[in-house]
Order: sequence, then structure tokens, then C-alpha cells
Amino acid sequence: MIVHSIDPYNAEPPRAALDGAALTPLDTFYSRNHGPVPRIDPRAWRLEVDGLVERTLVLSLADLRGRFDSHSVVATLVCAGNRRADLSRVRPLPGEEPWGPGAISTARWTGARLADVLAAAGVRPAAGHVAFTGPDVSPRADPPQPFGGSIPVAKAMAGEPLLAWEMNGEPLPVVHGAPVRVVVPGYIGARSVKWVRRISVQDRPSDNYFQASAYRLLPAEDHPAAAGLPLSVIALNAAILRPGDDQPLPAGPNPVSGYAVAGEDRRIARVDVSVDGGRHWQQADLGADTGPWAWRLWRATVDLPRGPAEIIARAWDTSAATQPERPEPLWNPQGYVNNSWPRVRVFGRPGPAGL
Amino acid sequence: MIVHSIDPYNAEPPRAALDGAALTPLDTFYSRNHGPVPRIDPRAWRLEVDGLVERTLVLSLADLRGRFDSHSVVATLVCAGNRRADLSRVRPLPGEEPWGPGAISTARWTGARLADVLAAAGVRPAAGHVAFTGPDVSPRADPPQPFGGSIPVAKAMAGEPLLAWEMNGEPLPVVHGAPVRVVVPGYIGARSVKWVRRISVQDRPSDNYFQASAYRLLPAEDHPAAAGLPLSVIALNAAILRPGDDQPLPAGPNPVSGYAVAGEDRRIARVDVSVDGGRHWQQADLGADTGPWAWRLWRATVDLPRGPAEIIARAWDTSAATQPERPEPLWNPQGYVNNSWPRVRVFGRPGPAGL
Repeated sequence: MIVHSIDPYNAEPPRAALDGAALTPLDTFYSRNHGPVPRIDPRAWRLEVDGLVERTLVLSLADLRGRFDSHSVVATLVCAGNRRADLSRVRPLPGEEPWGPGAISTARWTGARLADVLAAAGVRPAAGHVAFTGPDVSPRADPPQPFGGSIPVAKAMAGEPLLAWEMNGEPLPVVHGAPVRVVVPGYIGARSVKWVRRISVQDRPSDNYFQASAYRLLPAEDHPAAAGLPLSVIALNAAILRPGDDQPLPAGPNPVSGYAVAGEDRRIARVDVSVDGGRHWQQADLGADTGPWAWRLWRATVDLPRGPAEIIARAWDTSAATQPERPEPLWNPQGYVNNSWPRVRVFGRPGPAGL
Repeated sequence: MIVHSIDPYNAEPPRAALDGAALTPLDTFYSRNHGPVPRIDPRAWRLEVDGLVERTLVLSLADLRGRFDSHSVVATLVCAGNRRADLSRVRPLPGEEPWGPGAISTARWTGARLADVLAAAGVRPAAGHVAFTGPDVSPRADPPQPFGGSIPVAKAMAGEPLLAWEMNGEPLPVVHGAPVRVVVPGYIGARSVKWVRRISVQDRPSDNYFQASAYRLLPAEDHPAAAGLPLSVIALNAAILRPGDDQPLPAGPNPVSGYAVAGEDRRIARVDVSVDGGRHWQQADLGADTGPWAWRLWRATVDLPRGPAEIIARAWDTSAATQPERPEPLWNPQGYVNNSWPRVRVFGRPGPAGL
């Protein structure tokens, strides 16, 4: 893992470790934390469901597993700061984790449907948002407070968000939120609150620091506090996982592969690859479709010229929208949502073909 | 109107005519046709609903208006070829209408919900798509056939698609589909079939020429027949309506205004304007929110320098995705979905301010 900080623990897998695996192994899954990782006794853990509900619930892990049907969903989690490193080369982003393209991973999550738990509590008509709070106190918040965030009630009731206790068929690891975490497919990872202990149904978004102040796309200049676009649905994005950057490769045919992801109702429709700066593109082959909430892996064989070259990729979603070309116009003060064309620099050296 | 062709009749309003009006007047609404405009006696008109349904329906206009509740929705229709002119300057697009930014308009549509009519027919479980056919035979199809297209059954049942007989409170004009047209909010205009006379529920998309061959985003090169991405949900887009292109304006503060549109579940979150090539951006003020299926008008006051300048805009949607920068990498053989940054060239002349 590439460890960006130890306390809080923030680490991403090297890009090659993500390549070719539709589900990310647990020890390769990226870790994003805002405070110390809590160790919670599963027998002592309780989940409170309150706010605009007919009846407040207090659920133990046995209650959650016993009272509700268990469901599984393959979902990609991605940090809003994924690929930030390319933005910090445009203009420095002090204090922000310099994520490469590995702040993203995919698992098969198993747990109770958030919608079923909310239905058991009885959501009142005035409900607009569902807020989650964890136990992990973040010194980054001002004043320090437990991590939290919220999603619209329509998304909470849509079926795919889970209160998960299993990941790829194994018990949820502590660093990924044991005993129970929220998983909100199609939304930025920050809304999938780990070690969740309170779910509040309310008429407005969470006032938690990580909903109200952080995880907002601010304009590059001229940004009053609490301004900006609150991040929720994942924007169309892609990355090249192989080859890596600054790698000498034999000129001629070479494999290229990566991932592409489209948030919420959009799907990946096409991925293109170019080795001539985007003048000509070829279509990549898309890997298996593992459902609406998962990334799509892709691969292509490019004909690498001799000498320095850049491999570029771009994804298209089902609305026929594609990614912006350059990171420069996307720079923003917290370095979120860099979805510019992914590029790797390589050097084609004379010699036998690379396949 | 700017008339691109008389037979079939294809015309768009000049951009200034769209400016500032959340609803487009009927005589300003763009017209896109693929064959001659049919004149249909409303008393003789019948709508057949067949295919994967429990019972075939044959509905007169009186049936449709009498048996189903009437609903209204404000929806923007946009041609998939809107803003094509900028793509044809990249590389010629012979035989395609050179639409400017006016192949888009917004109305309040009133009619029966498609979902209610389909529920009355009883949709069978094997249903995957809902196909519409009009009476207007298009010589462009090979062989010539009536215009048609289809949408997924989930969209057809979602509530917002209408079988509309009214537009902005007035009877639907003949050129816009009288007596009844389909309106599919959030989808490209081609799916909103005019003068609809048959609705077929089927397990696959329509094999009509305008679904199976046209209205597909083909790769720039290397495109076998029937390849490409079928266009459905509208991609994020925007245009500048004022000022017009190549206009001399007084240097100093000048108003700029336009529209932005985001398809399906996405909304417009922000619009930026730049007068220095995209190095600095200011946020525009968004006009009234007229609902999830309508464009969002916007306006800003820019400080125009003396001499030649370019005014650029870009929209952001609620996933924090924004538009691509240049039309060149978006060029495709039928010239669809140009959603690159809109630009107008102006000349700032010394003199009193323009406000």
C-alpha cells in the first residue's frame, strides 16, 4: 500500500494491484480515515435510528442480522479526492492527501438494506435527508467532532444502500468499519460512514463538518465559507492502471488497462485510448459488467511508437458525456473530483514486441 | 426562425429569441422533422397500444382525455444535433442539419401519463422497451419508413413521460405533433415521437432506423454499421444566448446570459463564465428552478476587455461533472452531442459601459 498518513490512516494500493480484479481483495482496498480507527466490541455496539421517524430504534448487531433480510451488492467506493495528485501539480494543495488513482476499490457488500431499517422505524413525511454519524472524532473538524454525513431520503430508500457487516464474503475488517458500516453505492465514499452508530432522519442535510464544510466543490477563487457544491453522486471518471508512469516499454503492441466509473443512474458506455495526444482514439474492450454500482474494467492493445509517448484514456457514459481534457480548469481549493483524461508517460524503446 | 430546410421542415430560433424565457413561446419552439408534417383529423386519430401487454388498446383522443387523469410537466426538448455547427467547423458533416445552439426549447406539456396508459394495457413481465411509431414517412431511412424510436420500460413507467395534447396551455400545434405526441423528459428529442399512433411494448429496443441506425454516437473512425452508443439521456450542456457572435460591444461591464441543461436525474449545480480563455471564471446567477426536467437559465455581468475577446461558459451538474473544453475531440460522423464549452467571439470597443 502507498501510505499517505499513519494517523489518521490513509493508504491506497499501487495502481497495478487494482488491475484486472473486478473485486478488490480486502488487504488491497483503499483506506480513508479522518480520525483514529475505533475498536468496537461487536456485542456492545448499538445503532440508534431517530429523528423524523414514528419510533426510535436501538439495534444490536444480532437485531440487525436477525430482524432484517440480508442483501448483497457489488459497489465501488471512491474517495472524492481520488486522482488529486494531478491537481496538486497544477497548483499546490497543502494539507490534502495526494491521492493517486488508487483511492477507489470495489467489493461485494452484504448487510441489511438501509431502506428496510428505515421502514421499520417509520419515516415521517417531513423527512428530507438521512444523516449518519460514526464514533471516530476528527481533529480536522472545527471544533473536533465525530465523522458524519447525509444522503437524500429518496436515495436512502432506493434499496441499494446497505448497513453492511460483510465484505467479499468475509467479516468486515475493523479498518473498513466493523462491526457495521453504511455503503451508499453511486455516491462518494465519504457518505459510506464507517462504524455507524446513529442514523437520524431529518428535514435538512447533516450539519456535520464533513457534509457542511468539507467535501464541497469550491470555485477556484472567491469562495465564502459553506459555499460550493456538496459532493454526492460520483462523476464520470477513469484511470490507467497498466502501464505505470515513466516506464520504458518495447515499441510496438503493448497492453493497456484500467477502470472507468459512472455514478448513480449512468453506466460506462465506451472507453477510448490514444497514443497520439487525442488525435486518434481506439476503443478499449470492456470487462464483465458486475452491475450498476460497480466500476467497469477495460483493456486495449496500443501500438506504442518509439521514443517518449503519452497514453491517454477517456470514458463515455450512457448520456454520451465524456471526461474533460485537462486538470488545469478543474483545480479547486480542496482538490476534489479530478476527472480529466488519465495520462501516463512512457518511453517506447526499440526491441521485441511487449505482448 | 433560422430555417435549415423546408422539406422536411427544420428550423431553430435565433439565440436571442430563447433568452430570458423559461418557457419558449410556441412560435419560437424549434422544429425538427424527418419527413413531411402530417395533417391528422383529431376525430379520426387512433392510438394503438400493443405488444407485450395483457390487452391491446385502441384509443381515440376522447378516450385518452376522458379515461386518464391529465398531468403537466415543464420539460426541455433538445435535438441530439444541437450545437452541431461547431463540430462541422472541425470536420465537415455533409447531409446533417447545421444546428446552432437553438435546437432546444422548453414548454409546459399537458396530457396523459404514458405510465397510466401502459398500466391500463397491462405490461407483461418480459417487457424491456416501449417503442413509439408516428405516421411521418422519412425518405432518409433506408428503406423509407415512418419515424419511430423507443425508451426503456422503466423510463416509460417512471411517471414523467406524457402523451401530450397541450403545450404552454394551448392546443398542440400540428408541427409539434397534434393531436398527440410523446414527451420523454430528460431524453433526446428524437424519443418524443410526434403524431404518435402506435405504442408497442417489446423485449428489445425499436428496430426503427432512427433508433437502430441514426441517433447513435459513432466513434470518429472505424465504425461498422449499427455500432455506436444509442443516444437516450441528455448529456450536460450549455449555450450562450447573449451576446451573439462577432458582436462589437462597449468595453467594461456587459451582460451575458444563456441556458444549461442536465439530463435525467442530474441537475445544474453551477454555471461559470470566463473572458480570459478559461484561466479565471466567475459564477453566473441561476434563474428560477422550473423543475427536474427543464433547462436552467443563467446570467452574469462580465468585465469585457478592450479588443478581441472570447466569452466562454461551462456548466457543472450535481455530480460535480463539467463540460469538455473543445469540440475537436468530440467530433463524430453524425455530429451529435457537442457539449464542449460554448464560446462567443466579441470585440470590446472603447466607450461608455454597456449596462
